[in-house]
Amino acid sequence: MRNVNLSLYLVLDPDMCGGAQGMIDTARAAAQNGATLVQLRAPHWKKRALVECGRALKAALAPLGVPLIINDHADVCLACDADGLHVGQEDLPAPDARRIIGEHRILGLSVSNARQLAEVDPALVDHLGIGPIFSTATKTDAAAELGIEGFAALAAHKPCPVVAIGSVKARLAQPLIAAGADGLAVVSAICGRPDPGAAARELAEAIEAARRGL
Amino acid sequence: MRNVNLSLYLVLDPDMCGGAQGMIDTARAAAQNGATLVQLRAPHWKKRALVECGRALKAALAPLGVPLIINDHADVCLACDADGLHVGQEDLPAPDARRIIGEHRILGLSVSNARQLAEVDPALVDHLGIGPIFSTATKTDAAAELGIEGFAALAAHKPCPVVAIGSVKARLAQPLIAAGADGLAVVSAICGRPDPGAAARELAEAIEAARRGL
Repeated sequence: MRNVNLSLYLVLDPDMCGGAQGMIDTARAAAQNGATLVQLRAPHWKKRALVECGRALKAALAPLGVPLIINDHADVCLACDADGLHVGQEDLPAPDARRIIGEHRILGLSVSNARQLAEVDPALVDHLGIGPIFSTATKTDAAAELGIEGFAALAAHKPCPVVAIGSVKARLAQPLIAAGADGLAVVSAICGRPDPGAAARELAEAIEAARRGL
Repeated sequence: MRNVNLSLYLVLDPDMCGGAQGMIDTARAAAQNGATLVQLRAPHWKKRALVECGRALKAALAPLGVPLIINDHADVCLACDADGLHVGQEDLPAPDARRIIGEHRILGLSVSNARQLAEVDPALVDHLGIGPIFSTATKTDAAAELGIEGFAALAAHKPCPVVAIGSVKARLAQPLIAAGADGLAVVSAICGRPDPGAAARELAEAIEAARRGL
């Protein structure tokens, strides 16, 4: 389970999706159209709401074979028996996160610079989200944007698989895959789109085309 | 461990105490002067800061025999090996919280009305915080104030030990203990006081006097 398909990683946004049911509908449509991993991220939500939404997402995604990752909260991950956890640099330290979620769950970590990358222990962490590629309205506390070249410079030293995140769009699939991305993580490229399934399909096809072109 | 002395339960506030070191100093002074239980509550903090502060609090309190409770975050409770967890009605459901923290840690639950009280499972929950007794600036999302009579009406049906919380002061010890409180939980009566140790001592003595008077 810890080696997952990172090709198209959907990070849900409750505001863009219109609440819990919107996130569930968006996740299902995306998973039916090429999304390979889904993250529940709702930093302003209380945990009871997160657990309920996480359980509904797991029920929607498990039959499609798409793992569910919980952002930040290892306890919510355990409560809804999610497939994994994603932590940032100010969240639980990786050793604590790994100890709490156990050996079989997926652990992802956000990295924004070379120092953070050098500190990654691939025995604890399964994959990295490297970003932001470009600045974004979704995450107001994000670090300075890397651009494609900054991403490539970090990805060249990756100790484990990496996804690129931060204003990632279908037209960036080719340069990001060429720069070493094992997948793309997206928020606004799917959440809140008139047809999230079609948006996911377009992204999945762009990633596939980028891989064929390598 | 799950049956603890609830007499004087200090709930730390990072703003009133002036940050992490202020909370640690306040907790130590209070524990040396009659506080019997300390809770780390910093709802706006990221988890790395919570874990670091929790570990420092545990190191300060364990030699004094005063248990440390973590508010809301079962994962932080595990990460810093705290003695217990406190959850509210919108936090992790008690069955999930108990499963995550294990059988030997303390689990407290906030209750504000008769419906919530009737739902408490004393096999899962070790004690309750009943409040707010009076409205408070500390907790902006709190329910309507109960007053002493409202507290007494709930405490009469308590399925486990209870502490009274919400603008609780030393002069309220007598009526609250008489109304069925097993202890008082305080924030601003200790945090941010010129001499937190003296404030704790005054509260502890008022609680002791109230018990002698029963």
